[in-house]
Amino acid sequence: MNTNKIKHIGVFTSGGDSPGMNSALYAIAKTAEATGIKVSGFRKGYEGLIDGDLVQFKSHELQKLTQKGGTILKTARSKRFLELEGRKKALQTLNANKIDALIAIGGDGTFKGLLTFSEICDIPFIGIPGTIDNDISGTDYTLGFDSAVNTAIENIDKIKDTAESHNRVFIVEVMGRDSGYIAIHSGLTTGADAILIPESGKDFIYLLDKVKNYDSEDAFLVVVSEGDEIGAELVSSKIKEVNPNVDLRITRLGHIQRGGNPSALDRMLGIRLGVASVNALSQGKKNVMAGVLNNQLHLTPFKEVVKQHQVDDELMELLELFGK
Amino acid sequence: MNTNKIKHIGVFTSGGDSPGMNSALYAIAKTAEATGIKVSGFRKGYEGLIDGDLVQFKSHELQKLTQKGGTILKTARSKRFLELEGRKKALQTLNANKIDALIAIGGDGTFKGLLTFSEICDIPFIGIPGTIDNDISGTDYTLGFDSAVNTAIENIDKIKDTAESHNRVFIVEVMGRDSGYIAIHSGLTTGADAILIPESGKDFIYLLDKVKNYDSEDAFLVVVSEGDEIGAELVSSKIKEVNPNVDLRITRLGHIQRGGNPSALDRMLGIRLGVASVNALSQGKKNVMAGVLNNQLHLTPFKEVVKQHQVDDELMELLELFGK
Amino acid sequence: MNTNKIKHIGVFTSGGDSPGMNSALYAIAKTAEATGIKVSGFRKGYEGLIDGDLVQFKSHELQKLTQKGGTILKTARSKRFLELEGRKKALQTLNANKIDALIAIGGDGTFKGLLTFSEICDIPFIGIPGTIDNDISGTDYTLGFDSAVNTAIENIDKIKDTAESHNRVFIVEVMGRDSGYIAIHSGLTTGADAILIPESGKDFIYLLDKVKNYDSEDAFLVVVSEGDEIGAELVSSKIKEVNPNVDLRITRLGHIQRGGNPSALDRMLGIRLGVASVNALSQGKKNVMAGVLNNQLHLTPFKEVVKQHQVDDELMELLELFGK
Amino acid sequence: MNTNKIKHIGVFTSGGDSPGMNSALYAIAKTAEATGIKVSGFRKGYEGLIDGDLVQFKSHELQKLTQKGGTILKTARSKRFLELEGRKKALQTLNANKIDALIAIGGDGTFKGLLTFSEICDIPFIGIPGTIDNDISGTDYTLGFDSAVNTAIENIDKIKDTAESHNRVFIVEVMGRDSGYIAIHSGLTTGADAILIPESGKDFIYLLDKVKNYDSEDAFLVVVSEGDEIGAELVSSKIKEVNPNVDLRITRLGHIQRGGNPSALDRMLGIRLGVASVNALSQGKKNVMAGVLNNQLHLTPFKEVVKQHQVDDELMELLELFGK
Repeated sequence: MNTNKIKHIGVFTSGGDSPGMNSALYAIAKTAEATGIKVSGFRKGYEGLIDGDLVQFKSHELQKLTQKGGTILKTARSKRFLELEGRKKALQTLNANKIDALIAIGGDGTFKGLLTFSEICDIPFIGIPGTIDNDISGTDYTLGFDSAVNTAIENIDKIKDTAESHNRVFIVEVMGRDSGYIAIHSGLTTGADAILIPESGKDFIYLLDKVKNYDSEDAFLVVVSEGDEIGAELVSSKIKEVNPNVDLRITRLGHIQRGGNPSALDRMLGIRLGVASVNALSQGKKNVMAGVLNNQLHLTPFKEVVKQHQVDDELMELLELFGK
Repeated sequence: MNTNKIKHIGVFTSGGDSPGMNSALYAIAKTAEATGIKVSGFRKGYEGLIDGDLVQFKSHELQKLTQKGGTILKTARSKRFLELEGRKKALQTLNANKIDALIAIGGDGTFKGLLTFSEICDIPFIGIPGTIDNDISGTDYTLGFDSAVNTAIENIDKIKDTAESHNRVFIVEVMGRDSGYIAIHSGLTTGADAILIPESGKDFIYLLDKVKNYDSEDAFLVVVSEGDEIGAELVSSKIKEVNPNVDLRITRLGHIQRGGNPSALDRMLGIRLGVASVNALSQGKKNVMAGVLNNQLHLTPFKEVVKQHQVDDELMELLELFGK
Repeated sequence: MNTNKIKHIGVFTSGGDSPGMNSALYAIAKTAEATGIKVSGFRKGYEGLIDGDLVQFKSHELQKLTQKGGTILKTARSKRFLELEGRKKALQTLNANKIDALIAIGGDGTFKGLLTFSEICDIPFIGIPGTIDNDISGTDYTLGFDSAVNTAIENIDKIKDTAESHNRVFIVEVMGRDSGYIAIHSGLTTGADAILIPESGKDFIYLLDKVKNYDSEDAFLVVVSEGDEIGAELVSSKIKEVNPNVDLRITRLGHIQRGGNPSALDRMLGIRLGVASVNALSQGKKNVMAGVLNNQLHLTPFKEVVKQHQVDDELMELLELFGK
Repeated sequence: MNTNKIKHIGVFTSGGDSPGMNSALYAIAKTAEATGIKVSGFRKGYEGLIDGDLVQFKSHELQKLTQKGGTILKTARSKRFLELEGRKKALQTLNANKIDALIAIGGDGTFKGLLTFSEICDIPFIGIPGTIDNDISGTDYTLGFDSAVNTAIENIDKIKDTAESHNRVFIVEVMGRDSGYIAIHSGLTTGADAILIPESGKDFIYLLDKVKNYDSEDAFLVVVSEGDEIGAELVSSKIKEVNPNVDLRITRLGHIQRGGNPSALDRMLGIRLGVASVNALSQGKKNVMAGVLNNQLHLTPFKEVVKQHQVDDELMELLELFGK
């Protein structure tokens, strides 16, 4: 046990913001305080490390912010940190502030940054997966995914009111970059007639068969993931090829999926991973991502964390049954 | 008093659906039942009149649906009703079913249809203004407007989480066709930095001045109405002209603004206007729109109902103060 | 015109908190800044006046808080201000800080306090009606009422899911002190089978008739206002007298009705009244309450502001039709 | 493989209703249809089995109801099924309708009923855990728990607005019968100052220590589970003993926690378990509960399903850190 070694933890959020980040910050501060560790937050991700832009954390203040979306530390993508020069400055900041451990909340790009940083900086790093896309291995859910899906389905439910009032075809495009998790979850749970995800590729056969037989005496809901290969526009043009007279509308949910008060699950996940990351540091762990895998706390070495490109078998079977 | 004359009211919803329509249907059925009047609902607007597609209403069943968005009668735009042939068929339907009064929930196009119909049909017509755009004279609010604004601001609040986390410029496009009511209400109530409405035309000077001085140390929120003259894309290109490096995102809220459970105000408005329209018929009124003007029930002859193209002075002053 | 005379406005919130207060504070700061007036906020209502507990306002900071429920100035009831001693200290605070006008957001008790204060203090006072109870004359709506009703109906909608799943009688008690506005609005808009308000007194005849005939093949929803004369417990015991075996549940919505993000209407009302109160001061007005009466801005002298004990005729007719 | 044997599945919901039940019904119908199995739903739990009150299911109609709380099949507790006479009638119903498999959605009482029923009826039974209390072994979450927690935290967030505006002590009582899961999840995720659950017993020492030092310059939030041993009233009286002048309010969230549109997680859980239960029948399984254990589908024999009386170690550690 080397619990006593950590005196001052630095923490930052990086990449896209996601709901639940503030819960994680609260839990980090609370856990650290309970064991006499000081916590400082760097603003704007790696930019704050480079510029020495840091604030002190008290859990009492963070306690009131568990319901707030986004990240109070702000976030950014940093070009400077990609250069050795930038990383050297970040190291100077850590040394100048006697920070002896670092917790980063972000996506796989954030963890890659830490790995590179570890070449010149030997203090322990812990990562927490924060992205609405749920595309990171080593955890059942990433921070923000459940909130994003809940926002998506609340709004798709609204769209269904209009779709059913007009007997329209509606194409709803959801986020997820090259991952179909948001589309498959939100499509299944809103009773979509068709669900299209990047992992399935341009497989429009079933959709077009269904739409051809669509009798316009009901609504028809397509949930599609954003992406170069698919996306709402492409689906729309394919449908119009087989059924030119269809009454069709497109809605892209867009950035509303990133914000908003975090769901219960994301707040709990933030708390669990926040506590786990400080505990991991206290136990001498380093360069690992704290996740919840098969509903249990789990640490995965950064080197093994990969971007997921496939949804699991059970989901694919559900997609086959409900989304085609 | 010719209360006893009305025995059977027909009702339909027409044009775009809007939250609160089902409350109005409930109130019409309940009020009619209390005075022994039968109520039938035509499905899909004027199409149902032409095709004789009608269902009987019991208030007891509608009572459970006050919270449901859209319209259970479905709605549609009817090309056939624009032709005399179609209107003659609609008249046959009314006669065949011994319907001696008609209540229509819809926009100004719906009321124009009734006026034309009155040339060949002399039963009394009452209109209820139902559209999220709030662009009809003779009423403070149209049915659905308050729900649409509430949906808009709940989602703009979410977007603000991300905008503030990234210090981004966000352009949010809201609905309203050529009316700026949704934009001005949702912009004012979310603390937008700039609000652009069709009624103000292409007046970008103030916005561009503000954005030029924008220091990227905070979020910057623009709420803009859809429309040929303005719209998110145009605003975006104007901003990029004066500040090419700005971190800018666009979100169009789209059709989520039309659906969802109606707000308290829209449900009350539906109930008030539903009751008022049956009472108006019982009092021998015809060819009038029931509205709530200056918070009082008010009947406006169809001929005087116009599409509003201007927001009132108080709102324009608020726009001047907050939105520029 | 004596526009130039006002240099420094003090503002505070008093009595129970209500959603929309922060929007009003934002609008006051923004309007004052536009005309070069300084604004200070007193914390905790009259207590802050007595103790000199004040903070400076910048509209830029308040702009981000329009969606926040409660009041960032905090609020309290002050026993000390009821004593002359307390009011003298409050006067000293105003003089010491060169405050030459005062805007108070609160209920009728708050305005009575200002009237008494005006006996020893001759700077102009403006009131803004802030209470969820909607029981103040001179305005269509008080700040917070629309949010409270929306919170009530969203939760009654949830209760209906369970009531209908179990075919139960549900009694839901809502707030309003001795005013039935929340009960009547939330009861009408959720399709309640019976609505009981203080203004109607202990009139249980209709309710009991309905419940006697209740066949337990459906849900039965009673919305009742809190209050000594009525309240959920009394209604429950009355129902059990006529139908002892009924499957009945009580839920009191309680304080959830006071908080939460303000509705669109309450945010707009806060903005309209905030601007109007500063404008009233600039125009030399004093000792008036700014309200929106018949949907128009309206100033009512404090002496004429009374607690409303009656709902208007149209509402009573709706209650008669739907709630009995 | 005896896939071909099942021709007609009966399904019912029993015990308290919970959000997500309709998603499970949809998934059962969809999965059965895909393999040519007929599905009938019994209304009002075991009562419908006894009375032969059944309806045929088409997945197309259920597809539109995934977002609806409660259960469209209605639910009830049945005294008659506790008697052999009642169970014999239920058996007659099954035989008369040639039902050769049964899926029941409910709590541990429901599964006990099935076990007893299996003494006289040898068709295969599958259970799906549906209760907001999350107190059933063999699954990470029960259907409805996540929705209940989300409803709880949305409303506790509202209460915090008022608590912070008044610097009050607020005691919020949540549901859970003798299980503390809702209390611990909703307390942790709303930043409660103290959390009291049945599993911890009457351990008020930490709470009272905190409240004694409470300086009334902030809010103080207690989340407590309902229950004989604890509950809001007891906590309130304990607090008043050590601090008689504290400004304290109680709110019991009550039945709002049972209803409302199901969360994304509950809809997915309903879909996963609905599909799994039909698949289990097709694979010849019987007398097992379908659950998601450690995030994987898992079947537990009814005999091993127990009511959980302990929260897991990780949660107890979080409670120790945050809730005391």
